[in-house]
Amino acid sequence: MTTLVFGHKSPDTDSTGSPIAWAWYLTEVVGTPAKAVLLGEPNTEAAFMLQRWGLEKPEIISGVAEGQAVVIVDTNNPAELPADINAADIRAIIDHHKLVGGLETAEPIDITIRPLACTATIMADLMGSSLSTAPEAIKGAMLTCILSDTLEFRSPTTTDHDRALAERLAGDLGVEIPAYAAEMFAAKSDVSAFSEAELLRMDSKEYAVGGTKFRVSVLETTSPGMVLDRKAALMEAMGPVAAEDGVEQVLLFVVDILNEEATLLVPNDLVKTLAEKSFGASVSGDAVVLPGVMSRKKQIIPALKL
Amino acid sequence: MTTLVFGHKSPDTDSTGSPIAWAWYLTEVVGTPAKAVLLGEPNTEAAFMLQRWGLEKPEIISGVAEGQAVVIVDTNNPAELPADINAADIRAIIDHHKLVGGLETAEPIDITIRPLACTATIMADLMGSSLSTAPEAIKGAMLTCILSDTLEFRSPTTTDHDRALAERLAGDLGVEIPAYAAEMFAAKSDVSAFSEAELLRMDSKEYAVGGTKFRVSVLETTSPGMVLDRKAALMEAMGPVAAEDGVEQVLLFVVDILNEEATLLVPNDLVKTLAEKSFGASVSGDAVVLPGVMSRKKQIIPALKL
Repeated sequence: MTTLVFGHKSPDTDSTGSPIAWAWYLTEVVGTPAKAVLLGEPNTEAAFMLQRWGLEKPEIISGVAEGQAVVIVDTNNPAELPADINAADIRAIIDHHKLVGGLETAEPIDITIRPLACTATIMADLMGSSLSTAPEAIKGAMLTCILSDTLEFRSPTTTDHDRALAERLAGDLGVEIPAYAAEMFAAKSDVSAFSEAELLRMDSKEYAVGGTKFRVSVLETTSPGMVLDRKAALMEAMGPVAAEDGVEQVLLFVVDILNEEATLLVPNDLVKTLAEKSFGASVSGDAVVLPGVMSRKKQIIPALKL
Repeated sequence: MTTLVFGHKSPDTDSTGSPIAWAWYLTEVVGTPAKAVLLGEPNTEAAFMLQRWGLEKPEIISGVAEGQAVVIVDTNNPAELPADINAADIRAIIDHHKLVGGLETAEPIDITIRPLACTATIMADLMGSSLSTAPEAIKGAMLTCILSDTLEFRSPTTTDHDRALAERLAGDLGVEIPAYAAEMFAAKSDVSAFSEAELLRMDSKEYAVGGTKFRVSVLETTSPGMVLDRKAALMEAMGPVAAEDGVEQVLLFVVDILNEEATLLVPNDLVKTLAEKSFGASVSGDAVVLPGVMSRKKQIIPALKL
C-alpha cells in the first residue's frame, strides 16, 4: 500500500512542499512507497513553488480510507485534517506546532515535533546525509518552504537552524535568496483572483479567547495595498464567513513582509476592544497598524485578550 | 528554574533510569539545570539499578506547580501523570508508547516518540556523541533500562537498535549482559514485601475492551512460583482493587521471563471468555498458560477481545 503524506487543509507552501520532500525520502531512501497529496487547493505561493521547480501538483483528496497508511506533516490538529483521520493507519507525524491533543494511534509510531520555523527543516535533520542525494526539485521545494515560513528570516519564529539550512540549500542550488524570495512573495501577494470570503479563509486558524471563538486570518504580502484597497468588501464579508464557520468574528491581519508590520481590520467595537487590550494599540477608524507583528504563532495568538 | 524530568506513576526501571539520564544530559551537556524526580516508589528492579550504580533515589513528588518547567519521559498519557500536568510548562516529551492524546502545550516544543523498546534508546540517539562523555552511572542506568524493557532482548518489542546500544554500553562498562540481567531479574522477582493489592497495581495500565474497563497488570519474573503460590489471595484481592480503581476486572499476567510465557489468572467467567476469545486458549481451572506472550504493548493489549 502506498503511504499518503499530507499537511493541513488550506495548503500553504510548507504544507505543499514538505509532503513532497518526505514522500521522496520515504520512497527513494527508506524504500517505503509514498505519495504526497493535498487536502485542498495550494495557495499562490505554493503553486509558484511547484511551477518553478517542475513539480507536479499533488492530487487533492477529500478524505482517507479506514486503515490507509498516512504520514501527517505540518500539523497535529485533527480540526485541520480529514474528519476520519483517527481511523487511518497513522505511521508518523512531523510538525512544528504546539501539541493540541486529539490525534491517537493504535501502536507506538514516529513522532517528531520541534520548535523550528519550518517542517522542512525538521525533515532535513531526519534525512541526515541523504539530503545531499535529493534531486534539485526536492531541495528547491525545501528551500521555498523555509523562506516562506520565515518570511525570508524576518519572522520571529526563525531559528539559526532554519536559516543555516536555507543558506546551504540555496548554495547547492545556485539560488540567490533575496531575488528568489522576492519572486515567491510576489506570487503570494497576487490575490486578485480570490473572493473576499476566500481571502478571509486562505490562511486562517480558529482560536478561542475566553469562550469567544475567532477565526484568526493572516495574509502575508509585499503589496498590502492590493488587499487594503478591498477593505470595505472584506469587512462586509466577515459577518457571513463568521456565521457560516461558527465563530463570533473574523480577525484579518494583513502582514506587510517588507515593512515588518501588520494591519488589523477593525470592523466593530469587539475587534477595537481586542486590538486595544491585546496589542496596546490606540484605534481610530477601521484599521490599525501593529509595528513588528509578523507571526500568528509567536506574536498574535499569545497576545489575544478580551 | 530547575526543570523537573519524570516518567509515569508506578515507576519501573525505564521510568526511573531515563529521567536520571536525561537530567544529566540537560544539565551537563545542554546547560539547562534539570533534576530527575519520581511520581511514586520505584519498583524493586529500579531500586536495584539505583543501588548498583551508586545513584541517589530521586525525590518523589505528588504534583507539579503551575508553570513548573517539566520534561515528560516514557509516557504521553495524562492518566499516568499528575492531575495538574497541563498547567505545567511542558518543555519536551520523549516516549515510546502509542499516542493517546490529552497532553497540550502552549507553544511548540520538542516531542520525540519512536517505536523502540526503551526510552533510553531514544535518548541515546538524541544525545549523539555526548553519550560517550556520560559517567558510568548514567551509562549503567541506560543499559539497565534497555535490558529491563526488552527482558534481555526476549520481548518482541526489542529492535536491533535497542540491542546494539545495550551491547555498546555493556562493552564500555565491562558488564557481562547475561549475568547482569540475571541480577536485575532476581531483584524484580523479589516481590515478597508487597501485598496482593500492591502486586496487582505494580505494573498496570487501564484499557477498555468494548466499553468494559480492565486493569491490565503484568508481573515479569524469573520466579513465577513466588507469585503463583499466592494465586488464591491475588484473586481474592481483585474484586476490591477493581472496585476501588473504577474498573470491571483486574487481569494479572505473570510473565515468566526465562520460559517466555505468561500465566493469566482466571478468577471468573468474564476472564475465561476473554482468555478464550483473545488468545484462543482453552481454559480449565483458575489459570491459563499463554506460550510466547511477554509484551503487554505488542501481544496482550492488541489481542484483547470480549
